[in-house]
Amino acid sequence: MDEFARIDQLLKPLTEGAAEALDLLDDAALLPAGGGEEYVITKDALVEGRHVLAGTPPEILAQKALRTNLSDLAAMGADPEFYLLALALGREQDDAWLGRFTQALAEDQRRFGIRLIGGDSVSTTGPVTVSVTAIGRCPKGMALRRAGAQVGHQVWVSGTLGDGVLGLAGARGELADCDGAAVATLVERHNRPEPRLALGRGLRGLAGAAMDLSDGIGGDAAKLCRASGVGMELDVARFPRSRAAAAVLARHPDLEAAAWAGGDDYELLFTAAPDLGGEVRALSRRLGLAVTEIGRVVAGETAIFRVPGGGTVPLAGWTHA
Amino acid sequence: MDEFARIDQLLKPLTEGAAEALDLLDDAALLPAGGGEEYVITKDALVEGRHVLAGTPPEILAQKALRTNLSDLAAMGADPEFYLLALALGREQDDAWLGRFTQALAEDQRRFGIRLIGGDSVSTTGPVTVSVTAIGRCPKGMALRRAGAQVGHQVWVSGTLGDGVLGLAGARGELADCDGAAVATLVERHNRPEPRLALGRGLRGLAGAAMDLSDGIGGDAAKLCRASGVGMELDVARFPRSRAAAAVLARHPDLEAAAWAGGDDYELLFTAAPDLGGEVRALSRRLGLAVTEIGRVVAGETAIFRVPGGGTVPLAGWTHA
Repeated sequence: MDEFARIDQLLKPLTEGAAEALDLLDDAALLPAGGGEEYVITKDALVEGRHVLAGTPPEILAQKALRTNLSDLAAMGADPEFYLLALALGREQDDAWLGRFTQALAEDQRRFGIRLIGGDSVSTTGPVTVSVTAIGRCPKGMALRRAGAQVGHQVWVSGTLGDGVLGLAGARGELADCDGAAVATLVERHNRPEPRLALGRGLRGLAGAAMDLSDGIGGDAAKLCRASGVGMELDVARFPRSRAAAAVLARHPDLEAAAWAGGDDYELLFTAAPDLGGEVRALSRRLGLAVTEIGRVVAGETAIFRVPGGGTVPLAGWTHA
Repeated sequence: MDEFARIDQLLKPLTEGAAEALDLLDDAALLPAGGGEEYVITKDALVEGRHVLAGTPPEILAQKALRTNLSDLAAMGADPEFYLLALALGREQDDAWLGRFTQALAEDQRRFGIRLIGGDSVSTTGPVTVSVTAIGRCPKGMALRRAGAQVGHQVWVSGTLGDGVLGLAGARGELADCDGAAVATLVERHNRPEPRLALGRGLRGLAGAAMDLSDGIGGDAAKLCRASGVGMELDVARFPRSRAAAAVLARHPDLEAAAWAGGDDYELLFTAAPDLGGEVRALSRRLGLAVTEIGRVVAGETAIFRVPGGGTVPLAGWTHA
């Protein structure tokens, strides 16, 4: 079974139709919070050697684990509030290691306005495994959802695409022939993604559907299509690319396809009615965060990626490091 | 640093004094839920080969992971409602394995009235790691806490003690010379602890302090003492023992100390004013669950374990399988 089938056939029945679970289609669940608000609650795990390279410093493990969860809150338009942390550590993770790990969490807590309220620490013979449960808040009924894309609406993406996977290549030492500053920028993007919290908040009531791009736009756009019961036509030539990615791709044109398909960008993919395009652009200017219109919602249930010259390319899903 | 120091010096500062975190002293955190209620939220991880033996069937992994979290909700007097699940699986955990795992969760969901609302599944090169975030509800201000034991109050424990560690010995094949039915009972207790949810609920407003016994009464009673700023004098001769444990200990008197110190019983340890003893006993009869008065809350900050003849024994903390 693929990931879709496992979720649909094995895990979704365990929701027993609970409305809070949103059919496991979204980045997070919703719980009533009282006072006209909802809690938005998400839980993601990070495994050393899988989501980050083996031997990654504790600071990066800590911040990547927290930020990927914050990205889920951003995708739902939630304000982060609290988190719980379950750590599985080996013998090598001594007090000094844990001190660095928690110090990095403290820095990100200040940056993103979130506090620890609980968790667990266990020992393991395997790789370091960090599970975060992040809890945010949102006015009731205003959370962004994957189900909500409507035919004719525009498809937008924040920031730039492809940096995450190129950063991974850089971290693996595969870009030694490229500009050092560009590679460093990309590695940093891979290690410490920027959760688009202010954008998610600003998109409440503006976006029809939204999600964060963790697994690559190929597979992720397909998930949004499936959740909304729509298709998409996306124009690969319009995919936004960072200066650092462009510099690397100029030397490594062979990485072009991987850069488009690759994951770990943690940008937001969202849809909005065409007459709201001006508001989306105004929000982008206010936040100083680029957003790019990359295509349209169409009938059907698949995402089609158009390339210059009139053809289409399959953009496969992506599996992490 | 020991576990106390790690929590106190490295993790507690990350709460930044958030009241919801209860200073990380309790089994769970509290979040306002509206409607005069609070959410009780806990997160524990289970590692194959550590909390259960390597090669444990998926049914037991699933139910032990869920039930140890439910035990935390029981310790807080909460009604279970939802959970999130993060799974780190290896290549051997195929669809058939996951089917058995989710089927076992479905059975426990019906039994304990809890539903899945979210989570994550990742792959790992290490042992199976299951992190559960369990969410319950409780009337506001009524959650049982570890801080609340008062000098002069009675100390109670539910069920029987020592079964968990003897069950582990049985699962390891170390009790082959004992009565097979007794060993099977103990192994089942180790594999599938019974969260004392009805007792926890009944103790709202009755118990001064409560916690669940996961790590053994030696270390756990010390945690309760520390949280409440009190001491305890506990009478080892009164510790309740199951018929199965008695049968095994009659053949293996060498396991006596381990049986008292050992963890994984998931019974509730709680305190109550002496004049509420009758109510505690009435609750016990109503639930058909034995409770035993095992000592008193005293001044000081340590738990003392008295043995017949007038001496005391140190009951060390316990680390899992």
